[in-house]
Amino acid sequence: MSSLNNTLKIAVLPGDGIGREVMPACMELIDAAVGQAGAPPLVFETHQAGAQHYAETGQALPAAALEACRTSDAILFGAMGWPDIRFPDGTEIIPQLDLRMEFGLFAGVRPIRWFPGLPKVLSDPRAEGIDFVLVREQTEGLFYARGRGEVLNNQEAYDTMQITRAGTERVTEFAFQLAAQRKRRGKPGTVTCVDKANVFSSMAFFRKVFDEIAAKHPELHRDYAYVDALALNMVKKPWTLDVLVTENMFGDILSDLAAGLIGGMGMAPSADIGDTHGLFQPAHGTAPDIAGKGVANPGAMFLSGAMMLDWLAVKHGDQRLADAAGLIEAAVEHTLSTKIAVPMEYGGSANCAEMTRSVIGALGAVR
Amino acid sequence: MSSLNNTLKIAVLPGDGIGREVMPACMELIDAAVGQAGAPPLVFETHQAGAQHYAETGQALPAAALEACRTSDAILFGAMGWPDIRFPDGTEIIPQLDLRMEFGLFAGVRPIRWFPGLPKVLSDPRAEGIDFVLVREQTEGLFYARGRGEVLNNQEAYDTMQITRAGTERVTEFAFQLAAQRKRRGKPGTVTCVDKANVFSSMAFFRKVFDEIAAKHPELHRDYAYVDALALNMVKKPWTLDVLVTENMFGDILSDLAAGLIGGMGMAPSADIGDTHGLFQPAHGTAPDIAGKGVANPGAMFLSGAMMLDWLAVKHGDQRLADAAGLIEAAVEHTLSTKIAVPMEYGGSANCAEMTRSVIGALGAVR
Ligand SMILES: CC(C)[C@H](C(=O)O)[C@@H](O)C(=O)O
Ligand SMILES: CC(C)[C@H](C(=O)O)[C@@H](O)C(=O)O
Repeated sequence: MSSLNNTLKIAVLPGDGIGREVMPACMELIDAAVGQAGAPPLVFETHQAGAQHYAETGQALPAAALEACRTSDAILFGAMGWPDIRFPDGTEIIPQLDLRMEFGLFAGVRPIRWFPGLPKVLSDPRAEGIDFVLVREQTEGLFYARGRGEVLNNQEAYDTMQITRAGTERVTEFAFQLAAQRKRRGKPGTVTCVDKANVFSSMAFFRKVFDEIAAKHPELHRDYAYVDALALNMVKKPWTLDVLVTENMFGDILSDLAAGLIGGMGMAPSADIGDTHGLFQPAHGTAPDIAGKGVANPGAMFLSGAMMLDWLAVKHGDQRLADAAGLIEAAVEHTLSTKIAVPMEYGGSANCAEMTRSVIGALGAVR
Repeated sequence: MSSLNNTLKIAVLPGDGIGREVMPACMELIDAAVGQAGAPPLVFETHQAGAQHYAETGQALPAAALEACRTSDAILFGAMGWPDIRFPDGTEIIPQLDLRMEFGLFAGVRPIRWFPGLPKVLSDPRAEGIDFVLVREQTEGLFYARGRGEVLNNQEAYDTMQITRAGTERVTEFAFQLAAQRKRRGKPGTVTCVDKANVFSSMAFFRKVFDEIAAKHPELHRDYAYVDALALNMVKKPWTLDVLVTENMFGDILSDLAAGLIGGMGMAPSADIGDTHGLFQPAHGTAPDIAGKGVANPGAMFLSGAMMLDWLAVKHGDQRLADAAGLIEAAVEHTLSTKIAVPMEYGGSANCAEMTRSVIGALGAVR
């Protein structure tokens, strides 16, 4: 890896609700981790966007925010959306979907890993070995229908799912490359195609294209599952899963289910990756019920920040950023496993500020 | 309830794989339970259908079998499908989907209940209180696309989801009536509309029609959930769920996930209900890996038989059939909770014949 010369600029969109609480915590942690890893500081450029901003200004995703996302090296995203704030046509304000389309963020990467300190949701002790990644296609599938649906005469409604060869190729290729990287970490390297090829021709097409890409990766295993059976197995034996690749809507459902296995969204990060851009956000939403109280668990936001640093490290060939990512992950794990601070969501008493202080404090311990 | 005069005829389709093993066991149990409840015996008319029958005869669902289904009082279904047997166009042989369309079996009723003797999948002790019913719309939704999908030029594929007012009204009405019955059993009586109304106009339409029907049932609670959030909550706190109603594809995924919470498909029955016909089948498939060995757990088939008796009892106003249903349920529970016989799937040694003998033996004990 060569070393980075220019300063990296991060577009920061805290968004709504607890997004506005966990984001400053995350920037503080990234600053500390990057410093300890000896990398030059990142430059954060924060923009308001989302439902609350829409209510105040009439703009959900201002042009300046979009431009900052376009010209930055990465996008760090909190959470957006608010129950009673909607567009005039009644639809929700969820700019994250627009950003996926705008920047072609085709791969929704949702790692699910259990580590000590997380709730033991499943009673089987093998659940401690949960460590898989769901890759959700994010630019087509059923979400192709967004803004295109038809309601006829108040009698019937139609939404169309689209699967393209190009879209399936790129997300499948991404999943195989991810599996290859994980293999280097000692994992078996299996990519499972999750579809409903027994019923839908678009899904049979998805599987066919998957097979063509799989053929280019003979060193990795491939597997197939119908989405319903996979949902069952995700509960029954999630420790057997490695890398999953699936259609947009299926991935939406399965990634939430998967987060349930590690106690909820509290430690579920995500990355939305495209050919040129990457957006990193916790899998949780804006949590209106606890927003404004300072009690949100910043863990998923922290881990999303680590995913960003990892991605930047590869993109720019800078090992120091990978080290910073590793420090954050290790510090989060250390904090939870030693119970220095236990988030309220897991029955503890640590609020957002206390979690942040503990994880930053742990950076030193894990070096 | 008035009492039944004429003999009830049941069309029996054992199907493929373990369907052929659990079905005779179920008929034997039903005979015994109906006898003990003092009801006249049911008349079973068995027909071959499914993938293996297709391989032998070129017919997956022979006209005589279909006619028997049409003219019977209920349909008892084992399981159909076999890995390597397909139609010439490569699609799978799954006549259960054709039967849903043929007889308008719009409500897929999938009860999920934990009782002593079932695996404790979730570590939270409240999981012992899991007792909900998923009502899956079964005649439209994404499955509307079956046989209608398009693949263009080997480059892109489209499948269209349909939501109709009539289809949504009837399945929602069904769910509310079910909730009302459950309320009489001391349940809170909440119907949750599971959709993705924040993204798809067809789903917003589904929710709108749901609301119209809900307004006719002011004595019951209503609730809403996005399908992704519901998948998470099904893992996090399934004991809070009562009656769920959802689109076809979502219901397919969620019902398998739900079965995972009680240890898999082994004790997951189902009913496919229409205005005139009812089909009852275990939620599991043909299990090619264990088929032919006599080791399948007939529990889900037994509970499906009980659902059939319950449905016939209401339809024909015959309390004795309801009693027979109650006997079967109680005998299955007694067998598992006392561990007289433990299915191999739960780590025990009882094969299909032993489970059957034990449950039939338990009928006396639970009267
Ligand atoms: C906010 C919502 C529209 C979004 C989605 O459905 O993709 C979310 O659930 C997600 O998973 O990122
Ligand atoms: C066999 C298959 C086509 C079917 C479905 O998808 O409906 C099954 O999964 C079910 O849930 O009944």
